[in-house]
Amino acid sequence: MKYAVIGTGAIGGYYGAMLARNGMDVHFLLHSDFHHVNEQGLRIDSINGNFNVAVKAYAKPEDMPLCDVAIVALKTTNNHLLEVLLPQVVKHTGIVVIMQNGLAVEQVAADILPQASIIGGLCFIGSTKIGPGHIKHSDFGMVSLGHYMKDESAAGITPELGLVTEDFLACGIDVKPVENLCFLRWQKLVWNVPFNGLSVVLNSSTSALLSQQNSRELIKSIMLEVIAAANACGQSLSTSMAEVMLVNTETKMQGYAPSMKVDYDHNRPLEINAIYQSMIDRAARSGADMKLARMLAQQLRFLSRDDAQ
Amino acid sequence: MKYAVIGTGAIGGYYGAMLARNGMDVHFLLHSDFHHVNEQGLRIDSINGNFNVAVKAYAKPEDMPLCDVAIVALKTTNNHLLEVLLPQVVKHTGIVVIMQNGLAVEQVAADILPQASIIGGLCFIGSTKIGPGHIKHSDFGMVSLGHYMKDESAAGITPELGLVTEDFLACGIDVKPVENLCFLRWQKLVWNVPFNGLSVVLNSSTSALLSQQNSRELIKSIMLEVIAAANACGQSLSTSMAEVMLVNTETKMQGYAPSMKVDYDHNRPLEINAIYQSMIDRAARSGADMKLARMLAQQLRFLSRDDAQ
Repeated sequence: MKYAVIGTGAIGGYYGAMLARNGMDVHFLLHSDFHHVNEQGLRIDSINGNFNVAVKAYAKPEDMPLCDVAIVALKTTNNHLLEVLLPQVVKHTGIVVIMQNGLAVEQVAADILPQASIIGGLCFIGSTKIGPGHIKHSDFGMVSLGHYMKDESAAGITPELGLVTEDFLACGIDVKPVENLCFLRWQKLVWNVPFNGLSVVLNSSTSALLSQQNSRELIKSIMLEVIAAANACGQSLSTSMAEVMLVNTETKMQGYAPSMKVDYDHNRPLEINAIYQSMIDRAARSGADMKLARMLAQQLRFLSRDDAQ
Repeated sequence: MKYAVIGTGAIGGYYGAMLARNGMDVHFLLHSDFHHVNEQGLRIDSINGNFNVAVKAYAKPEDMPLCDVAIVALKTTNNHLLEVLLPQVVKHTGIVVIMQNGLAVEQVAADILPQASIIGGLCFIGSTKIGPGHIKHSDFGMVSLGHYMKDESAAGITPELGLVTEDFLACGIDVKPVENLCFLRWQKLVWNVPFNGLSVVLNSSTSALLSQQNSRELIKSIMLEVIAAANACGQSLSTSMAEVMLVNTETKMQGYAPSMKVDYDHNRPLEINAIYQSMIDRAARSGADMKLARMLAQQLRFLSRDDAQ
């Protein structure tokens, strides 16, 4: 299949380079890095071995071929660009893989391309863009893929999900297809909601937040609030997941800066709507009042001078 | 009556100096400022006119006379000193005026001197210690006094409250005796709980916090939580008080730094137990779960590296 990558940063750059390096036909849309990548390709410094790969780079979506699959790895704060971009780079009956944080982030693409298959991707990876077309991959690399259903039901392993999974596997990507994307989105929020926000508000790494009793208890309270909201929304998450995640974070992610902390430190817009607001609104529709998550979102909007509702 | 002042800072220094200047017999216990104040007295730069006053200064409580009234204006974080101090400076059937922030902060003195009359003082004043024995009084100055009752009932205007009120009035202090101290303590918490904590966590003045929609809504949510808790505890506070306080803060207290923000910026311990914990615990005993206040207290403990429960 022919792939388009929209958003060639830490995530799109890494997975796109893995696909291109292993023989897939991948077309990268670039903005500020276009000239650099067009001339020198992508450079990946990876725990699995460094590599360079020459790629097909484009500065404008209208120059790109209409692909079978578009990988969307923009920050959700740039999703307003998709309405113009997506129809130019992927067939209207094609596949869109949304590699973004948050809840129901797939709906934007589903609205733009109602006949396309939308797949959500959750990446468990430590990667950072450290220069033009230059990505450092420092931890993990697994990506879970699930077919998006607007009604939040489990889609199962659909043919489209199977095709993308096959390609990813063939390129050495650790990919795990899942039957219920919505469940997985909520599960990831259990971690993302406390750690992303508190790392910004309290200006601290995950290990600093876990090193004190009070912040550890606060993190756990927020996790339990997310789990309760998920259950109110019909996804059976267990409360024991909170303690498991805390211990895993302590033992396996020493001193990690969540993506929102990295964004904040670089004065980039924060993904408050994707990670917090859509969850809070969804929970409210099922009668769950997320007081702690809302307070954290309000603090984040204050700090980032983002007065959107 | 003979007065002892324990804690000669922004509050104790100002009110003590007002009493001494107007002829009351006032004895000041000092620590680091002893030599300076013993030689040069207290200096007050006040919106009502600057003045200097020579005072009776002491470095040790055992050198002080046994007074009729002790004014306690220490930070609550130093309240552990009172057990040794109080019995040395005030008669065991005397009067103790607690000029501190928080809920039930009078109980410490009531436990130490069970036969004394304990009066709570709530100061509505902008004052800062800007040098040894040197206090700047920049705003307001009113103090509300109420007789403390362990059972939280309204004591009315007791004879002891009358005596202190008379002395304060005679010295030109704007004093207002109240019948129900507990009601007033809760009322002040409606302001103190959101503004003290958020000014530290979000590193902002009151006017910055009110200038954005999201932080303003958060402040109001916290105020409403305190009002609901007060009502659960039997004090009839109206929800309309929240909006009134917000507007008053916007119009009358431009750019004010709450006392906890001043403490934090000077690396002093924060009054988390007095302003947050005792309120949260009291509310819990009446079945009110203060989720927002607890989250704020946990954030404050993290930032001040205070892992006390």
